[in-house]
Amino acid sequence: MRDLHWSPKEKTIARRAFDRALHRELEATIQEAKLMAARIKSSDELWELERHLTQRRKAIDAKYEFKYSVLLLVLADLVREARINPDELHGLGEDKLRIIRGHAQ
Amino acid sequence: MRDLHWSPKEKTIARRAFDRALHRELEATIQEAKLMAARIKSSDELWELERHLTQRRKAIDAKYEFKYSVLLLVLADLVREARINPDELHGLGEDKLRIIRGHAQ
Repeated sequence: MRDLHWSPKEKTIARRAFDRALHRELEATIQEAKLMAARIKSSDELWELERHLTQRRKAIDAKYEFKYSVLLLVLADLVREARINPDELHGLGEDKLRIIRGHAQ
Repeated sequence: MRDLHWSPKEKTIARRAFDRALHRELEATIQEAKLMAARIKSSDELWELERHLTQRRKAIDAKYEFKYSVLLLVLADLVREARINPDELHGLGEDKLRIIRGHAQ
């Protein structure tokens, strides 16, 4: 998988799908934080929000690594989590789509 | 200051003033966090909220240390920050009030 060739067009498609998924996940995290904050009644819940944000930041940092050597696995994870719709990957070579499908299942 | 005697009544007064200040500061921090969260539009602002909460938690932990050896300094800080109204310390010995006033200025 590390030796796959990525055409310029494929790079564009992958980058766009990746960026959209990241944007959606950040947007969902923002909405979730707003909801948590609005419901806070005690300091315990305040520090719970802090812990939650730290966890989310670390999880997002770890998940969204844009390196071609691991990109198919990253895209497969995002498909499995329904953060990328398989249609968004239309235009990638069949070799790559097969790997993504295999790992996403 | 470390050798001052605290009567049971003085301990009660100090504890109550301390607890009230802590409660007010936590309440203010909660309201501030709700406001910050409600205004978030970008992920930068989301992680800014996380950093802000971490800072506030550490600052509050460091400030609210209930130990008689440092209590007058803690109370003086809280008076200076207007988190304790001097009236709330009514009933402490004049020796203690003098030290608090001196440090609070």
